[in-house]
Amino acid sequence: MTERTYETLTYEVDDEGIATITLSRPEAMNAFTVQMHEELVDVFGHVSGDDDAKVVIVTGAGRAFCAGMDLSREGNVFGIDEEQVVTPADIQERPGDPELVDGIRDTGGKVTLAIFRCTKPVIAAINGAAVGIGATMPCAMDFRLASSSARIGFVFGRLGIVPEAASSWFLPRVVGLESALELFYTAEIRTAQEMHDIGYLRSVHEPDELMPAARELARRLVAGRSPVSTALMRWMVYRNSAATHPFDAHAVESIAMQQTSKGDGKEGVAAFLAKREPDFTARASQMPDFVPWDSRDEIVP
Amino acid sequence: MTERTYETLTYEVDDEGIATITLSRPEAMNAFTVQMHEELVDVFGHVSGDDDAKVVIVTGAGRAFCAGMDLSREGNVFGIDEEQVVTPADIQERPGDPELVDGIRDTGGKVTLAIFRCTKPVIAAINGAAVGIGATMPCAMDFRLASSSARIGFVFGRLGIVPEAASSWFLPRVVGLESALELFYTAEIRTAQEMHDIGYLRSVHEPDELMPAARELARRLVAGRSPVSTALMRWMVYRNSAATHPFDAHAVESIAMQQTSKGDGKEGVAAFLAKREPDFTARASQMPDFVPWDSRDEIVP
Amino acid sequence: MTERTYETLTYEVDDEGIATITLSRPEAMNAFTVQMHEELVDVFGHVSGDDDAKVVIVTGAGRAFCAGMDLSREGNVFGIDEEQVVTPADIQERPGDPELVDGIRDTGGKVTLAIFRCTKPVIAAINGAAVGIGATMPCAMDFRLASSSARIGFVFGRLGIVPEAASSWFLPRVVGLESALELFYTAEIRTAQEMHDIGYLRSVHEPDELMPAARELARRLVAGRSPVSTALMRWMVYRNSAATHPFDAHAVESIAMQQTSKGDGKEGVAAFLAKREPDFTARASQMPDFVPWDSRDEIVP
Repeated sequence: MTERTYETLTYEVDDEGIATITLSRPEAMNAFTVQMHEELVDVFGHVSGDDDAKVVIVTGAGRAFCAGMDLSREGNVFGIDEEQVVTPADIQERPGDPELVDGIRDTGGKVTLAIFRCTKPVIAAINGAAVGIGATMPCAMDFRLASSSARIGFVFGRLGIVPEAASSWFLPRVVGLESALELFYTAEIRTAQEMHDIGYLRSVHEPDELMPAARELARRLVAGRSPVSTALMRWMVYRNSAATHPFDAHAVESIAMQQTSKGDGKEGVAAFLAKREPDFTARASQMPDFVPWDSRDEIVP
Repeated sequence: MTERTYETLTYEVDDEGIATITLSRPEAMNAFTVQMHEELVDVFGHVSGDDDAKVVIVTGAGRAFCAGMDLSREGNVFGIDEEQVVTPADIQERPGDPELVDGIRDTGGKVTLAIFRCTKPVIAAINGAAVGIGATMPCAMDFRLASSSARIGFVFGRLGIVPEAASSWFLPRVVGLESALELFYTAEIRTAQEMHDIGYLRSVHEPDELMPAARELARRLVAGRSPVSTALMRWMVYRNSAATHPFDAHAVESIAMQQTSKGDGKEGVAAFLAKREPDFTARASQMPDFVPWDSRDEIVP
Repeated sequence: MTERTYETLTYEVDDEGIATITLSRPEAMNAFTVQMHEELVDVFGHVSGDDDAKVVIVTGAGRAFCAGMDLSREGNVFGIDEEQVVTPADIQERPGDPELVDGIRDTGGKVTLAIFRCTKPVIAAINGAAVGIGATMPCAMDFRLASSSARIGFVFGRLGIVPEAASSWFLPRVVGLESALELFYTAEIRTAQEMHDIGYLRSVHEPDELMPAARELARRLVAGRSPVSTALMRWMVYRNSAATHPFDAHAVESIAMQQTSKGDGKEGVAAFLAKREPDFTARASQMPDFVPWDSRDEIVP
């Protein structure tokens, strides 16, 4: 059992290689804070280097998953520097500039980009209210399961602000343009069943069956698999499917195939031919040198 | 009530902020002409600056929605300069060149790009036949509702030509690659129910219930919302979801969040904390300076 | 009847213009070899120049569609040069470098890129087991029909390698991110019905009804159509839907409309106005000069 200590969340890895990140401010319905953002960026970075962790489940402590940004603090609740005159191009050109990182760049987006860089499959187990960043953060996870008691809302429009956490990239890819626009425009809070019907949720479970279902899925994803193969699949699916031409995917896949075929692929083929289970030894903490292949994945946070 | 006078369409804004654009050549089943293209480009540009208009419904006068390009005129029915030797790259490099704008650039595409630039949600209320440009134009609208009497066909293949109005970008994003290819290849005319089944239509209504349903949806989209927040959502969903990496969406969202958080966001949070309805004051006719953030959105028409 | 002779497949074009490519190593369940890759690249290039062929059906001889890469050969089963130190950017910059073409570039990807360049609609008729490259290759085809006896598996993860054939680009566009990740991570073999439920298959048929259904669809796609119009539709849908802005699609469509409106479009409009069937004469073996408009489509293989 590996543990790592945070204040706003817990991180545990069990003997099966399932890491569980639990948002843990139950007294505040796990509302998102600047500190939680820092700890989430840290823990998702940590997961990629932790070979004990093969797959990640994200859930919430208590009744809620995440009730959105904590608006109760004094003063500038969003923590954004209102004075800087900045354009999207400035952020693209100077992503690591401390003034932009700390003053302008959306905290939710820094978290979902950390999830995007994670080399392990990520499952959201939405145990209750998921509102604002609580609804956008799971968009960057591979699978979203929910309790039947969950209520999910992209409520930004009620506050006169905009969706964040790169959800304008992720959500339309999950539910399509029309549903994404409807969820954002109306800012309505939906039931788990409604969110299942439009494809946001993979499945809906009785409250006490949610974590068992998430764990069962987690096992199916990684049992007997090469962690490097799995990591490359995750990176390739998200990045290559967004390329403007399949040749770009082909370029990445060719190198990924070369690297895995001389790594765990040798054992995989030998085991297949011998009709035995493979014994993979490559470690996701040491990805092949060509990773990352896109400079935007080098931006941390 | 705001009005604006055109020859091929009508434009009205009611007291609830619902603008209705009615294609209005009922004697010709609202067939599309060069003049209609000019007036549609104009009216969608006008809508963005008209703070009385919060949401747009597009429908047709009489029995048809739009029966396609008017092929009845003499001579060069498509109005295209056949002599110019031009490539796609030429259009990308000199989009505003009058020879290209007037002689080569597809009139349907100029209309859907004007819809794409519109800062208000756009609803298609397809009241009858929607053929050719009548089928491609709604692809650029956020929601497509139809009368059960509607018949919809991407008939370009029957004429030996190709789909237009940027539908090769929009339609696959609405119905997927396979259905888009099938609709284009076969050029078949489909019923409203069939188009609902493949995801082109959101809902199908009895003829006299179509406009009430469209108006009910329109109200849900904008009631109590900040027009600037709504406009940014619309722009972000379409543009950011097409980015090749979520970091690019993050860059835009960060600035959009900064701008709204110091605008209507202040009122939104105050109202939320006081448990009262917000009173938003920002106007979509004055978008934040960073809009547009992509030079391709500066091309008008 | 046109024929063309290969060792690992057969190619036939019937009097209706339906070309059938049959993977033909039935003694090995049509397992994929380096030679089969060369012959598939060749035949898909040939199809585009063969005006007798209007549409393509791909199926397998015997009980299987394609049982994946042939792993039974001695030595380096993947045929990949393990020594070269290469990045995806190297392949993008020197795609035609013989060392990369023959030593590094994924053979499956060279095949699906050849399918991507094909100017005719392509239908997969999956008659049995489709595993590994047998599952990824059809992702690049326009329509996938299967026998109820088909079993389909993206089994790369079991071998410790990664999906290929540009499937990280194609598959998420067909079934969405979540299903693509699940299929890749789990490496499970699924029934035809299961693959239909997630949108990979268009339809499932009794074994002896598969080819008749594929042929019926093939006729619907091309009967009475202009081959140049059809070819442009195919190219536009795949390429333009992946553009980062609809203006780029508009630029291509405008030229495609200009070229077809002065070609088969004249006959199409004349026939429409005269209420007779058109007699199109343009040939897909001679595409308009602006094709290809993206340099990545000039890379062969």
